[in-house]
Amino acid sequence: MALIVQKFGGSSVGDATKIKHVAKRVIETQKAGNQVVVVVSAMGDTTDELMDLANQVTDNPSPRELDMLLTAGERISMALLALAINAAGAQSRSFTGSQAGIVTDSKHGNARIAEVTPDRIREALDEGDIAIVAGFQGFNRETRDITTLGRGGSDTTAVALAAALNADVCEIYSDVDGVYTADPRQIPAARKLDYIDVESMLELAAAGAKILHIRAVEFARRHNVDLRVRSTFSTDPGTRVISGKTGGENMEESVVSGVATDKSQTKIIVVGIPDLPGKAAEVFNVVAEAGANIDMIVQNTATGVDVDDKVSDISFTLPKGDSAKVVGALEANQPTLGYRELEVDHEIGKISVVGAGMRTHSGVSATLFNALAKAGINIEMISTSEIRISVVTDITEADAAARAIHTAFGLDSDIEAVVYAGTGR
Amino acid sequence: MALIVQKFGGSSVGDATKIKHVAKRVIETQKAGNQVVVVVSAMGDTTDELMDLANQVTDNPSPRELDMLLTAGERISMALLALAINAAGAQSRSFTGSQAGIVTDSKHGNARIAEVTPDRIREALDEGDIAIVAGFQGFNRETRDITTLGRGGSDTTAVALAAALNADVCEIYSDVDGVYTADPRQIPAARKLDYIDVESMLELAAAGAKILHIRAVEFARRHNVDLRVRSTFSTDPGTRVISGKTGGENMEESVVSGVATDKSQTKIIVVGIPDLPGKAAEVFNVVAEAGANIDMIVQNTATGVDVDDKVSDISFTLPKGDSAKVVGALEANQPTLGYRELEVDHEIGKISVVGAGMRTHSGVSATLFNALAKAGINIEMISTSEIRISVVTDITEADAAARAIHTAFGLDSDIEAVVYAGTGR
Repeated sequence: MALIVQKFGGSSVGDATKIKHVAKRVIETQKAGNQVVVVVSAMGDTTDELMDLANQVTDNPSPRELDMLLTAGERISMALLALAINAAGAQSRSFTGSQAGIVTDSKHGNARIAEVTPDRIREALDEGDIAIVAGFQGFNRETRDITTLGRGGSDTTAVALAAALNADVCEIYSDVDGVYTADPRQIPAARKLDYIDVESMLELAAAGAKILHIRAVEFARRHNVDLRVRSTFSTDPGTRVISGKTGGENMEESVVSGVATDKSQTKIIVVGIPDLPGKAAEVFNVVAEAGANIDMIVQNTATGVDVDDKVSDISFTLPKGDSAKVVGALEANQPTLGYRELEVDHEIGKISVVGAGMRTHSGVSATLFNALAKAGINIEMISTSEIRISVVTDITEADAAARAIHTAFGLDSDIEAVVYAGTGR
Repeated sequence: MALIVQKFGGSSVGDATKIKHVAKRVIETQKAGNQVVVVVSAMGDTTDELMDLANQVTDNPSPRELDMLLTAGERISMALLALAINAAGAQSRSFTGSQAGIVTDSKHGNARIAEVTPDRIREALDEGDIAIVAGFQGFNRETRDITTLGRGGSDTTAVALAAALNADVCEIYSDVDGVYTADPRQIPAARKLDYIDVESMLELAAAGAKILHIRAVEFARRHNVDLRVRSTFSTDPGTRVISGKTGGENMEESVVSGVATDKSQTKIIVVGIPDLPGKAAEVFNVVAEAGANIDMIVQNTATGVDVDDKVSDISFTLPKGDSAKVVGALEANQPTLGYRELEVDHEIGKISVVGAGMRTHSGVSATLFNALAKAGINIEMISTSEIRISVVTDITEADAAARAIHTAFGLDSDIEAVVYAGTGR
């Protein structure tokens, strides 16, 4: 008998009809001879509605109470799913994060899972029940308070439970039937991947692909969880995320797995900063103290005739929402930092190409830059990791850039997928 | 320093503006030098909306999961109130029924409080916090499951916490500023009572007055909790419910405290049942097995010429919602019960007169019957307890009957309240 963890997102449990559909699907999984644990998010827009209520009461909600409020969302969806399953003739029981043994640190709003003690889940499974667990939430042992896990929390709950229960598979369900070579809404020629290696999945998630949250992927990699991305509304087997343990030998690494586009960032250029040792550190200390997460950083070559006059420009990107506070902090520190001016550009797009095969294949960056040159697209910034190359373009050119890259790497579905191995196609 | 428990009902926390108003009020109570525990119901129609969702999923919800679902309602309101209090500069923490130590039996949907272990509430109070507690909910120690307390649950939570914390006062807030001699919407001349003895309050609650739930009043009586009924939207001191301990000597019992009208019942007459020993028991066994709570019972004198032909009629009242199943059960058992026919009358009104002074004052029933006779109102059924007389009339005459009785006992506000003592008026 296999143990399967299935996670259903907010769009999958958005109303009573969808909840009954999920119930049917879960029962089928159990009837096929499996033990089933289901992790659910809050229904549709519930979390946003609860946030709205909080904002009507205060601009600055206390984190403990905000967590207490928001966790009502999953409580509603999990109870409704359990009601639907029981009404359809199977047995289920719902459990809050606390009841399911999701132990976290005490950082309200963005807690980290410290430990999972799923005794009650095991009991329920042993008694033949389907266990329904609230995603996104846990509790802290010392304060005995309820916490939430922040973005990607429900995916993380599912993977953490799968790891703690030593589940055979962890299936993440949404309204998309797998991981694609690019966002199909942006690039219609995008192909669904049957497999993707976990490192590439991590980079894609980090580069803005919304299909799986990076925390959940990290957790799956660390604990060798066999992760699958599937659609609630089809029987397609979806995409399997292959890690060391789960990969097997017949899986070759693909050179390029996919292209991700992120239009949610802002570029800030600190212009004319003295080219002295430690200046970059000073700049990013100021940024860090403002509480912003920065993404790409580029420092150009110094300009100037005389050594004493040498100045350079430092560019970096960060989430649009963080830009105002960072600009404020940099402006407040202009006298000590000694830069000439700030340029802020909200109109940028970041395109990333990800593939574990980049490690061993040369010529990937050449292919990328040639494709963009041929399309007449100007590159504003470049940054790379071992298995990723990201470029920044003007936001109006981002889609064209992504399409050109997708085609250049042979990812389009009407072209034979020569760079892929192990996709079963 | 006094310890005050304040309970706010759903209409008091119906939206963000009202929640902020309650927050202000609670903070004022704390600033006046008190420790404050606040018990809240779910916002406005939240519980009904959650029930609707459950009904969209199934006609027959499993009780454990329904409790899990419904308890989300108080979770939302308590967190919002805590957010509002914290935003206004005071300190508060919210607690679920389980966190507040409300231990119940395992009867989902209608659990009884078995024990209250409010350690976390005491800690919060000791640290200077206002403690916000979810009403209507608790948990069972054996199953470790969440339970709800059924009707009047939030009032009961407040009183139980007041008893366990040995609170000085338990204030029940709603949109009415106290206990009235009758429902002011029905009888505009109704007067607010400054005091009412707990036994009369119990009978009024049992007779259909909606101001306090009978379970909460019983709990207050048993544990000598000083209970007050007040309005969220005024500073009126409200009505104090006096029990043995809290009464003091300067309080004489009033002859009649109030008049309650209940139009939610149905009368069933079992016509022509053999007048044999044990027949009434047979009838009410059938009714009990159908799961209905009956209220008034009247058996008339037997009629018939010959002893062997003697038959009688048994009349009883019960909640309208229970009548269909009871009629079904009686019809199924007609052969063994041997009655001739059933008469069902949904169009009845029950008017009750309550007063602890009835024990020692004679002539109360004469005053009552004379008043109805003078008003030309026909009485269909009569039942009495030590401190209550109830009559059933046609539903179209119930309001007139209540007005006539209210006037006859001198309860109208433009008449001096001669039958009252200790009201301070």
